[in-house]
Amino acid sequence: MIDFPHLQEIVQQTDSRIVFLVVDGLGGVPHPATGRSELEVARVPNLNSLAGESACGLLTPVLPGVTPGSGPGHLALFGYDPVRYTIGRGVLEAFGIGLELSAGQVAARGNFCTVDEQGIIVDRRAGRIESHEAEPRCRELDRIRVSGGHVSVHPVKDHRFVLVLSGNGLSERVSETDPQKTGVTPLEARPLDGAAATTASMVNEFVSAARRQLMGQPKANMVLLRGFSQAPAFPSMAQAYQLSPAAIAAYPMYRGLAKLVGMTVIPTGSIFREEVDTLEEHFREHDFFFLHYKNADAAGEDGDFEKKVAALEELDALLQRIVALKPDVLVVTGDHATPSILAGHSWHPVPVLIHSPWTKGEGVNGFNERACGQGSLGRIPSANLMFLALAHAGKLKKFGP
Amino acid sequence: MIDFPHLQEIVQQTDSRIVFLVVDGLGGVPHPATGRSELEVARVPNLNSLAGESACGLLTPVLPGVTPGSGPGHLALFGYDPVRYTIGRGVLEAFGIGLELSAGQVAARGNFCTVDEQGIIVDRRAGRIESHEAEPRCRELDRIRVSGGHVSVHPVKDHRFVLVLSGNGLSERVSETDPQKTGVTPLEARPLDGAAATTASMVNEFVSAARRQLMGQPKANMVLLRGFSQAPAFPSMAQAYQLSPAAIAAYPMYRGLAKLVGMTVIPTGSIFREEVDTLEEHFREHDFFFLHYKNADAAGEDGDFEKKVAALEELDALLQRIVALKPDVLVVTGDHATPSILAGHSWHPVPVLIHSPWTKGEGVNGFNERACGQGSLGRIPSANLMFLALAHAGKLKKFGP
Repeated sequence: MIDFPHLQEIVQQTDSRIVFLVVDGLGGVPHPATGRSELEVARVPNLNSLAGESACGLLTPVLPGVTPGSGPGHLALFGYDPVRYTIGRGVLEAFGIGLELSAGQVAARGNFCTVDEQGIIVDRRAGRIESHEAEPRCRELDRIRVSGGHVSVHPVKDHRFVLVLSGNGLSERVSETDPQKTGVTPLEARPLDGAAATTASMVNEFVSAARRQLMGQPKANMVLLRGFSQAPAFPSMAQAYQLSPAAIAAYPMYRGLAKLVGMTVIPTGSIFREEVDTLEEHFREHDFFFLHYKNADAAGEDGDFEKKVAALEELDALLQRIVALKPDVLVVTGDHATPSILAGHSWHPVPVLIHSPWTKGEGVNGFNERACGQGSLGRIPSANLMFLALAHAGKLKKFGP
Repeated sequence: MIDFPHLQEIVQQTDSRIVFLVVDGLGGVPHPATGRSELEVARVPNLNSLAGESACGLLTPVLPGVTPGSGPGHLALFGYDPVRYTIGRGVLEAFGIGLELSAGQVAARGNFCTVDEQGIIVDRRAGRIESHEAEPRCRELDRIRVSGGHVSVHPVKDHRFVLVLSGNGLSERVSETDPQKTGVTPLEARPLDGAAATTASMVNEFVSAARRQLMGQPKANMVLLRGFSQAPAFPSMAQAYQLSPAAIAAYPMYRGLAKLVGMTVIPTGSIFREEVDTLEEHFREHDFFFLHYKNADAAGEDGDFEKKVAALEELDALLQRIVALKPDVLVVTGDHATPSILAGHSWHPVPVLIHSPWTKGEGVNGFNERACGQGSLGRIPSANLMFLALAHAGKLKKFGP
């Protein structure tokens, strides 16, 4: 959590409800041709009207210039210092396909590659083989048995899969087998400290077996493993904030992240409208709801300005159903920027609004980067947002006499 | 460096080039009579047009209210927390006259003073004797021999000189001999910890010998020593940022600072136009250039508003030659403010612009304190600028999965 040792003295449980709407990749950058960002171009009357009655500002997810992945982007929003609380690549990949990791399990991000007869990598991604080709290979690899524990292999998409190691005394401190270049052989997994010797030899045993199984294939005939990691034990939001927090997210990765910080994950559908249905149905059961909207990020990653505009408009149309529930505090923000002109996550600050009974006079004239830059919250680190949300909900008492 | 332990995971070497133009003393304060600052009065069409296509903001060098010297002002711009990374007065004075200090040497800032027959200080600056009077005295003092090491004396300007101590096991932890007032005798140098005993006795032996040499003179017949310091071992920019950084600076002090952070110093002329010549000649050889422009600070220090305006206009006229080189990222900012109405360095924030392929839509309507205060970068510590420059140059990968 952010570094405030007196939190437990001031936090209190109340009846008020917070809805935390995270628009993935919300932030944008003005298009060079028009000088206007996606949010400035989009017709989002409901967001704009909400901003007119909200405390608004801009969030810096990690540090100026630092582009966050989804992990640090979300952890910061939930009040976890994203520099201190980190999640491994294997764990997040496992979350992304809905795997749950128990304490002690180690996950790695795997992919099929192509090696020549000497075992030298000629294509690190095996020509990006499609899922229907990769899945039978994953089923074969899933049958591999190793000494000292158990391995399982789970297809992700195209050439990618997740390897999960189970057993006693496993460690994530194992070096990667992916040399990150072609023209060389895959690396041996090495223990990075004494406690990782068993895990490293399990990994090497798996890789040797995988090579034997796949070697008849002309491509996708070897595997590379990266990001060995264990699910970290983070402090729980429920305890830290005296909340009963719930997550409603169509995409598995965000459900995994929510579990990691102690949220109850409420089953929902596969699109945002169904998330809103779920929120309506369960609105009386929790006092904090994390609601995740994916489409803005996906369009930004595609570099499609108009598609991101459309995704924001689609969100805007559904916003009124959330407002109609009358949460005491409604927060709308993003985990990071995904400017269409960059076609990827970026370091840019992210608009935020906090709507509450106390913010009616604080509004700005629109929900976009420029207007929020003039808002009453100023520019703050994302990790400071949770306290502000709690404060507006009356859940933080006075600090000090 | 600034405290981000994951930097090495995300920094990458690329072909893109960054030019970092530091306008010494750039920031100003509106003149009470007109309400307009030097930058607002100056005709700087090229800077204004650049700001129209740049991410702009205001930098706080150290902390609000803290006026930085040149050392902390520059270190912050290069990403070094100026509170944690400090440089001694003697070292900076040595850099200012182009001395290089090897590890272990100790430098002090010295000046001639006048004492009476009882050895009591009557003028701490010896009537600010001119260089032509001080220099023969420096040559005499330079011949002094002490036990345990070697001393050398180098004239600076007027009554000021630099003393350099060489030898084994020297320490900077020596108390100053300047009592900072008249009517008393100079102080003995005392070791401030056990390891400084040899150094303190070397200093005292030098001071006694100097007194004997100078005692026939009516004025400038004694020396005072301050700011004993050794060149610190800072992490190198080259390693920290995966850059090949170079400095182009007409004034020796800035070349010394640049060396301290691991830049290659490219020889250049004595005026800014020659620095730009040097940049043009060597533009293909490095991927980061620190270019230093002195005149704005000098005019501000003189308290001459019009002269500072002229210095900014002179810079503006040469700016297009830098722009014509098409660096991927061009940063224009200052190490601190030097408002003419204060006739010295000040604590005020300093305008900054970052021009890159991604910033065209983010511009503000001029390069000055007011306009930059509305810019998309907001107000950030100077030490956060380097990451932003690297990000805009594509040199920082995503942090975390």
